[in-house]
Amino acid sequence: MPDTPVARTVSSDAVAAAYVRIKPHIRHTPAIDLPAGAFGLEHKLALKLESLQHSGSFKGRGAFHKLLVSAPGPAGVIAASGGNHGAAVAYAARALGHRAEIFVPTISAPAKVERLRSYGAVVHQVGAVYAEARAASEARAQETGALTVGAYDDPEVFVGAGTTALEFELQAAFDTLLVAVGGGGLIAGCALWCGARVKVVAVETEGTPTLHAALAAGQPVDVNISGLAADALGASRIGAPNFEIARNRVARSVLVSDDAVRAAQRALWSELRVMAEPAGATGLAALMSGAYTPAADEKVGVLVCGANLDPGSLG
Amino acid sequence: MPDTPVARTVSSDAVAAAYVRIKPHIRHTPAIDLPAGAFGLEHKLALKLESLQHSGSFKGRGAFHKLLVSAPGPAGVIAASGGNHGAAVAYAARALGHRAEIFVPTISAPAKVERLRSYGAVVHQVGAVYAEARAASEARAQETGALTVGAYDDPEVFVGAGTTALEFELQAAFDTLLVAVGGGGLIAGCALWCGARVKVVAVETEGTPTLHAALAAGQPVDVNISGLAADALGASRIGAPNFEIARNRVARSVLVSDDAVRAAQRALWSELRVMAEPAGATGLAALMSGAYTPAADEKVGVLVCGANLDPGSLG
Repeated sequence: MPDTPVARTVSSDAVAAAYVRIKPHIRHTPAIDLPAGAFGLEHKLALKLESLQHSGSFKGRGAFHKLLVSAPGPAGVIAASGGNHGAAVAYAARALGHRAEIFVPTISAPAKVERLRSYGAVVHQVGAVYAEARAASEARAQETGALTVGAYDDPEVFVGAGTTALEFELQAAFDTLLVAVGGGGLIAGCALWCGARVKVVAVETEGTPTLHAALAAGQPVDVNISGLAADALGASRIGAPNFEIARNRVARSVLVSDDAVRAAQRALWSELRVMAEPAGATGLAALMSGAYTPAADEKVGVLVCGANLDPGSLG
Repeated sequence: MPDTPVARTVSSDAVAAAYVRIKPHIRHTPAIDLPAGAFGLEHKLALKLESLQHSGSFKGRGAFHKLLVSAPGPAGVIAASGGNHGAAVAYAARALGHRAEIFVPTISAPAKVERLRSYGAVVHQVGAVYAEARAASEARAQETGALTVGAYDDPEVFVGAGTTALEFELQAAFDTLLVAVGGGGLIAGCALWCGARVKVVAVETEGTPTLHAALAAGQPVDVNISGLAADALGASRIGAPNFEIARNRVARSVLVSDDAVRAAQRALWSELRVMAEPAGATGLAALMSGAYTPAADEKVGVLVCGANLDPGSLG
C-alpha cells in the first residue's frame, strides 16, 4: 500500500477504537444467516440489518464518532445534507446534548426537513442546489465556530462507518463483504477494518459510479449522477482519502442497474419483511443480478445499510 | 395446575423437542436490545423480530412442526385460512415436498390468494364466510385423506409456536414476555415454555378479546370480532387447550385500542425501520399506551410476531 497520509494515520485499529467509543450510543444491529435458496441464490448468505440503526442508516456510526472525538463547543455542529448524513448528525447531536444546524437546498422534500426538525435540529433551507447549501453551511461555521461534520471524507467519520463491518464480523462468518458506495465513507471504513482478511466488493448503481469511474481514471473524477440511488449514493465524486483506501483494499468494483436494485428491494420485503432504500439493497442486487457471482465455497456477507424510504414506494 | 389432558401430555419439554425438530427448517430470527428511552419508554426492552420468519409470521414454526411429526401421505396437507396460517402451511408444505390445498372464502383479497399460489398451494375459494371454507376443507380432507393442519388448537402446532419464546430466551434476558393472542396458539406455546420462570402477559385488541372474554367467563366463549387486528387475531373463540394453558400460566391479560396499535406500528417504523402488522405491534402498544406498566427493575421482552401487511398502509 502506498505511503499516503491516510495509510500512515488510519488503520484497522482506528476502527476498533471507534467501536469502543461509539458502542454505548449506537444500536447493535441484527445479522441474519440465510441458507442456500434464499432470494433464489445458490449460496448461503449473511445479512447485516444496519438499516435498523439510529436514524435509519449506518451514517449514525460516523456521526457519533466524530462528535465523541471532537467535543463540539456551545455553537454545536453543522452539516450540509438533506439525506442520511444530515439525519445522522442531527440525531447524534441531540443524543449527546449538542446544538445542530443542518443546511439543505430549498428543493428538499418537506418530509426530509420535517425529519431533521423532529431530531431537534435547526434547519436552514438555502440555495437551489446542494453546493449552495454546503457553501452556506461553511460560511455559517466560520461565523459561529460550530464543528462541521463532513459526510464521508473525514477519517473520524469513515472509521466510525467501518465499525459496521467490525460488528458484522463478530456476528457472522464471511469471506467476502458486499458494500454500497456513494462518497466512499462506508467502503473506506469497512475496507480498513477488513484488511486482507475479508474480500471487499464495492457495489454502485450504473447511475452513481463514483468509485468505478475513479478506478478507471486512476483518481477521483466528477460523474453525472442519476437514477434510483442518486438521493443516497449521489455524491458526484468519491472522497480523496476514501479513494486511496479503496483502490488499495477493495478487491472488486461492480455496477448494478436500477432494475436490479428495485428487484432486490422487493425481494427483501417479500422474502424477509425487511425494508431497504435503493442504496441499502445494492449488495443483494449484485448477487441476484449476477454482477457478482461467488465461488462455490465462498461465504458472502451483505450490508443492508439504510432504510430511509417511503414504505409505500416499493409497490 | 389442573390435571387436564393437555397438562398431562404437553410440557415445556415438548416445546424444546419441537425446537430441535424445526430448527433446520426455520429462520433464527433476530432479537434486538433497546435502551431506556426507545419508543418513549422508561425501561429497557428486548424485541424479537419474528416478523422476519418464513412466510412473514411465527405461524411457520407450528406449520413446520405439524408436518414434520405427522409425515403426510401423497394427498398432502389441507388448511382453511387466507391469512398467516394458510401462508405458513403452504410455505412449509412446499419446503418439505408435500402437496398443499388451502381453502379460503370467496371474499379473500386477491393479493392473499396470489401469495398462497406463489408458495405452490392449490387454492380453493369456497363459501361466503370462513366457516364455509373450513367445512369444505374438512369434507375435502375426508375425501382425499390429506392431513388437516389446524391453526392454533392442535398441540403439535402450538408447541411449534412456543419455540419463538424458547429461541428468544436464548438471545435476550427478560422477566416478562408480552404476547399477542388470537386463537391462542402463540400464547399457549410460549406459556408452556416459560412456565413460572417468565411472567407471560397476553395482549389483545379491544375488538378481538378472545382470551380476555374467556377468562371473564371461566371458559372459551364466542366474541364478536372487529377492528384493525380482526384479520390476524380474528378467531372468534379461543381454542380449548389453549385456554386451559393460558388460564393457568398467563399472569395478566390486557387490552389495547386500535389507535394504540396504530401508534405502535408507526413507532416501530419511524424509530426502528421495522414493519409489523397490527397483531405484531400489540405488545409494544401495551407498553406505549400504559395498558401494561413494568416495575422499575422489570426486564420486558416483546414478540413482534408478524409483518404480513401492505407496506403502504401505515401512512
